[in-house]
Amino acid sequence: MAEIPYKIYLEENEMPQAWYNLRADMKNKPAPLLNPGTLKPMTFEDLTPVFCDDLVRQELDDTTPFFEIPDEIRSFYKMYRPSPLVHASFLEKALDTPAKIYYKFEGNNTSGSHKLNSAIAQAYYAKKQGLKGVTTETGAGQWGTALSMACSYFDLDCKVYMVKVSYEQKPFRREVMRTYGASVTPSPSENTQVGRKILEAHPGTTGSLGCAISEAVEVATSTPGYRYVLGSVLNQVLLHQSVIGLETKAALDKYGIHPDIIIGCAGGGSNLGGLIAPFMGQKLRGEDNYRFIAVEPASCPSLTRGRFAYDFCDTGMVCPLAKMYTLGSNFIPSANHAGGLRYHGMSSVLSQLYADGLMEAVSVEQTSVFEAAELFARVEGTLPAPESSHAIRTAIDEALKCKETGEEKTIVFGLTGTGYFDMTAYERFNDGKMTDTIPSDEELEASFATLPQVNL
Amino acid sequence: MAEIPYKIYLEENEMPQAWYNLRADMKNKPAPLLNPGTLKPMTFEDLTPVFCDDLVRQELDDTTPFFEIPDEIRSFYKMYRPSPLVHASFLEKALDTPAKIYYKFEGNNTSGSHKLNSAIAQAYYAKKQGLKGVTTETGAGQWGTALSMACSYFDLDCKVYMVKVSYEQKPFRREVMRTYGASVTPSPSENTQVGRKILEAHPGTTGSLGCAISEAVEVATSTPGYRYVLGSVLNQVLLHQSVIGLETKAALDKYGIHPDIIIGCAGGGSNLGGLIAPFMGQKLRGEDNYRFIAVEPASCPSLTRGRFAYDFCDTGMVCPLAKMYTLGSNFIPSANHAGGLRYHGMSSVLSQLYADGLMEAVSVEQTSVFEAAELFARVEGTLPAPESSHAIRTAIDEALKCKETGEEKTIVFGLTGTGYFDMTAYERFNDGKMTDTIPSDEELEASFATLPQVNL
Repeated sequence: MAEIPYKIYLEENEMPQAWYNLRADMKNKPAPLLNPGTLKPMTFEDLTPVFCDDLVRQELDDTTPFFEIPDEIRSFYKMYRPSPLVHASFLEKALDTPAKIYYKFEGNNTSGSHKLNSAIAQAYYAKKQGLKGVTTETGAGQWGTALSMACSYFDLDCKVYMVKVSYEQKPFRREVMRTYGASVTPSPSENTQVGRKILEAHPGTTGSLGCAISEAVEVATSTPGYRYVLGSVLNQVLLHQSVIGLETKAALDKYGIHPDIIIGCAGGGSNLGGLIAPFMGQKLRGEDNYRFIAVEPASCPSLTRGRFAYDFCDTGMVCPLAKMYTLGSNFIPSANHAGGLRYHGMSSVLSQLYADGLMEAVSVEQTSVFEAAELFARVEGTLPAPESSHAIRTAIDEALKCKETGEEKTIVFGLTGTGYFDMTAYERFNDGKMTDTIPSDEELEASFATLPQVNL
Repeated sequence: MAEIPYKIYLEENEMPQAWYNLRADMKNKPAPLLNPGTLKPMTFEDLTPVFCDDLVRQELDDTTPFFEIPDEIRSFYKMYRPSPLVHASFLEKALDTPAKIYYKFEGNNTSGSHKLNSAIAQAYYAKKQGLKGVTTETGAGQWGTALSMACSYFDLDCKVYMVKVSYEQKPFRREVMRTYGASVTPSPSENTQVGRKILEAHPGTTGSLGCAISEAVEVATSTPGYRYVLGSVLNQVLLHQSVIGLETKAALDKYGIHPDIIIGCAGGGSNLGGLIAPFMGQKLRGEDNYRFIAVEPASCPSLTRGRFAYDFCDTGMVCPLAKMYTLGSNFIPSANHAGGLRYHGMSSVLSQLYADGLMEAVSVEQTSVFEAAELFARVEGTLPAPESSHAIRTAIDEALKCKETGEEKTIVFGLTGTGYFDMTAYERFNDGKMTDTIPSDEELEASFATLPQVNL
């Protein structure tokens, strides 16, 4: 076996040829999406007015283990993939731990995160279907940026509804999207019925992700040649993101490294679901065993404190119902600088795995997350995204446990992105002004009370 | 020969073991720095109060062809090097050119540019000398960021004097530096004599690079255990940056690719000097031939419209005199979004090569630069820094000439960095509000009139 370099890069011809569909190996399949009107499972016909046909097929298919990655997408992947699996030797040294730490770094592309892996796939299928364009919403902007890049590549129109407060406070991400040719509209807007209604009721509102989703869906379903796309939570997104885990496994196998613990931050679940997919597949098939840890913010603890129940995917309650760990679709997490981890629910796939005891979850507070981020930036050289730093926090905690016990465990975590557009958060931390907020039991109970009737 | 991948990554063991000192192969050596008081060449003793001893040795040595890269620096380089040499096949396709285009991408690190290559070297020698810390100035912030990262790695104090207008308008880069533990002071400040003097004379001033240099030098020379460091122009910096060219040449050689034209943007010259070093060495030794093109902004055209003369390196006229192509140390370029290309002079090494007809130079206007940047971002996926985009502009122009003539030339250019902290510039471009400004002949003549007497 060759000596392990600091950064393990696969060769281009070692990149995955197919995405892996973890659902095919799950005995307890994730519960189907339900039509909010009929409470019956959503069908192909129900979903295709909103999503592209091929993506609906992927969404509904829980038996096919592999989906070939089309050549056009593999060609695009080569622009920024394979991503490196980095041996965090500087971090190990700083922690003085016997543990071995590796991280899969998905931030070395202009979107700054793993979101591009699914954005390019969704844009490809939209183009293949002959569509003119797609619509989406974005909060902090990672997903919108990734989708803009993907649409630019396939010459598709891209309409992004950006939560107004972010549109105004985060002009840099907005300009990246515009540079890639996307139209970026602050939400709520006058473009849609739902937007006008909200503006009439709340003239000074700065918007919400739920409202932006509703606007994007309305535009997609009312404009010929358009569909709506989403960057997380959905089965299809986890399928595309399996490229992260497949590359990670190939790189580890190449050097004979066996991970004991695999860690990822979890918002909607796209990164974690992708990272763990092939390893969880082995565990499900009884071929190997690993510990998996989902890390979520203490301010938005869907796995660790949520209910496993059918809930609305959006605050507007117009999307299908999904069975997932949820805090209730009306739950508003307190101010938190990890915008990508503020979703009230969790991917149905991950929710089922957690319910079945196949995966652990922890929640961490943001000041301790930024302490980990700062240490990581200083010793490993890369300034991490606040979201990714949740995984860093837990990887460090596990490595410090190894220091106490003397165990030489191998820890792999997902470094989903860089924090270059999150310096306002770092500024608060640098100034000692960052605070932690954890929802009270009463708040959560009140939010659970809004879960839909189908759970009764 | 193996098939050429989209991204050529050298193996870690193929990384350079030594920096290459191009001056050793130059028949006409760059003219020495002169002591502004005596007008005699600066000696080791003159320079060591300002710079570290080992760096002064490198600065003054124009005969030793190779300097071994210390293990500690090579270890740090592994964090973000080898950097990829990318085959810009998407750009070739978009241009429909028979030319082959490659770029060496130096932006995949948190400093966002090639500056880290010299920052880590300078921090290493400061640590080796037992210093407590270093001082520097920064304008746009790339160099300050790189130095902060390097100092954090070697546990050195880092005092950055940041031009006040940038400190206030570019808080994100400032926060990256603070996250790496640097102290960032808006210049002019009350910390120094020169700062207080300027504040007294011009109470509302937003500062200048020249003033920030003067403050940083004053603090370094008046504080025990400190030295001053600089990110461009100097011979030592070009020496360290030769790692760019050495890796580029190794990657090209590995796949049997022979470049016809090598292109880089030129501000102080650190990136271009590093990129071309080993190729220019071959040309000087008569072993091979290449075209080299330096690209500068039309608003700050030191090579294409400057004088080859001794001049002050700083506007405060306290630093040594360097013989270089210069617009005069009082020249203030008009507003331009490539902050790294606003220096009035050019490295003495590059100036001598240009004077000897070994290198060409062109100047380009910023709207055409941003048009190239936008095209590049859309087809190659990476949003480039405004500075780097000057090289992209000229690479595209050369590729389009090949399209006319049908020639299959191979073009290599340096992509020095990413534009993630330059979105204000992109916003102006996206809004159609970007303008071009070119200094008049009269302006330049007035500026040349301030050149020091030594030239008479």
